[in-house]
Amino acid sequence: MDLRSGERMDDLGRNGLRIIQHPERFPFSLDAVLLAHFATVRPGDRVLDLGTGCAVIPLLLAGLYPTVQAVGLEIQADTCDMARRSVLLNGLQDRIRIVAGDYRRATDLLGHEQFDLVTVNPPYYRPGSGKISPTPHRGVARHEVEGTLEEVVASAARTVRYRGRVAVVFLAERLVDLLAVMRQHRLEPKRLRLIHPKSSHPAKLVLVEALKGGGTGLVIGPPLMVYGVEGKFSQEMRAIYGEGPGPSGGTGE
Amino acid sequence: MDLRSGERMDDLGRNGLRIIQHPERFPFSLDAVLLAHFATVRPGDRVLDLGTGCAVIPLLLAGLYPTVQAVGLEIQADTCDMARRSVLLNGLQDRIRIVAGDYRRATDLLGHEQFDLVTVNPPYYRPGSGKISPTPHRGVARHEVEGTLEEVVASAARTVRYRGRVAVVFLAERLVDLLAVMRQHRLEPKRLRLIHPKSSHPAKLVLVEALKGGGTGLVIGPPLMVYGVEGKFSQEMRAIYGEGPGPSGGTGE
Repeated sequence: MDLRSGERMDDLGRNGLRIIQHPERFPFSLDAVLLAHFATVRPGDRVLDLGTGCAVIPLLLAGLYPTVQAVGLEIQADTCDMARRSVLLNGLQDRIRIVAGDYRRATDLLGHEQFDLVTVNPPYYRPGSGKISPTPHRGVARHEVEGTLEEVVASAARTVRYRGRVAVVFLAERLVDLLAVMRQHRLEPKRLRLIHPKSSHPAKLVLVEALKGGGTGLVIGPPLMVYGVEGKFSQEMRAIYGEGPGPSGGTGE
Repeated sequence: MDLRSGERMDDLGRNGLRIIQHPERFPFSLDAVLLAHFATVRPGDRVLDLGTGCAVIPLLLAGLYPTVQAVGLEIQADTCDMARRSVLLNGLQDRIRIVAGDYRRATDLLGHEQFDLVTVNPPYYRPGSGKISPTPHRGVARHEVEGTLEEVVASAARTVRYRGRVAVVFLAERLVDLLAVMRQHRLEPKRLRLIHPKSSHPAKLVLVEALKGGGTGLVIGPPLMVYGVEGKFSQEMRAIYGEGPGPSGGTGE
């Protein structure tokens, strides 16, 4: 497997999985890894990952759950190419398919209500707020340049089956927006966890899983602390990462 | 100060404050104490506590903040009488006023937008769900018999001034309902904390403070654990309770 200019290959720390990344194109972060571990996955589930980037979520889900089939939808052609090479690298071409396209047109490409689980690691800042990344690839992923929270949740709501699940990782500071948009699209939040850098710090990220057509009633699980004592990863984080090298960026300070 | 039949007097564990309670009329619980400590209070604030019960929140706020003026609104006449005797018992009649009335008519009794902070410890279950308390007084407080979450939040939104705060303690499992109703009434959630019995347990309660007319953006503070190691109150809980005897019921397992 050839790496292209600027790319690098990393160990995903689980079942010998490897991933091709490009440091200037938003390498996978803690957020995606936490989401893959948080989502409820059942045997034989068909999973769609919206805005899959280098396909870290499909790769991790394929590694964690041996009967899962996953589709990764990604708008940027060169990122799709990189993701497809990672799928081949791991011999997962029978279980993971990378589709090039805009998630706003997901039903044109993938049909209505065809998935048991849709995972979403959406762009985090509204246009005009926060720092815009200096490189255009990162800008697309980090900001709501190519779509808004509302659009990506709407896309998830259309592609997930009735009584299927939509799992999202998002900024804790925008929790109210996320819950409101989910409910607006008949995705009822059922499970939630907050991610804190340390036990004494405010939450940075939130993980929410919603059920399409579900009734009210939310279980807020124990908080996940990234770091424990002496600045080391907490026990739960070590269990998630296995022996891998860890992600780039994300919740860590 | 005479106690009536069935009443008892308890130490509030702070500044020598005492409170009269009746064990069959929903004695104050952990929820109210946590809310009094969570709310943002500024010098000279006028505070309204909706559904004040035995007035534990006004009493605690008066003890914590020497320049606060508080009104407690309570629908049950005999509970009002008990609350007024607790106010006299503590010599706080110049700073706390107990008003008899229904919070759905709060603006008729207390005017529009007259308060800097409104505190709400609303009934927890929808009619028809959960167990109805065997005694009628508890039933009124525990269930949405006399009003719904929507009604009590609407009442808070009408009585709090523009840019004033509304602080609520509620069941964690109904967080989505609470946030939705707040936003519907232009109360934007700005601060949130979750209360977990222990660090490995799901959250039972949530504390939310909203700003009337505020913009989006929520700070989710560190989780509050009720119990630490060996089944003892956590350090934060000991700081909140001081040397008091502790409340009846609430989040503890």
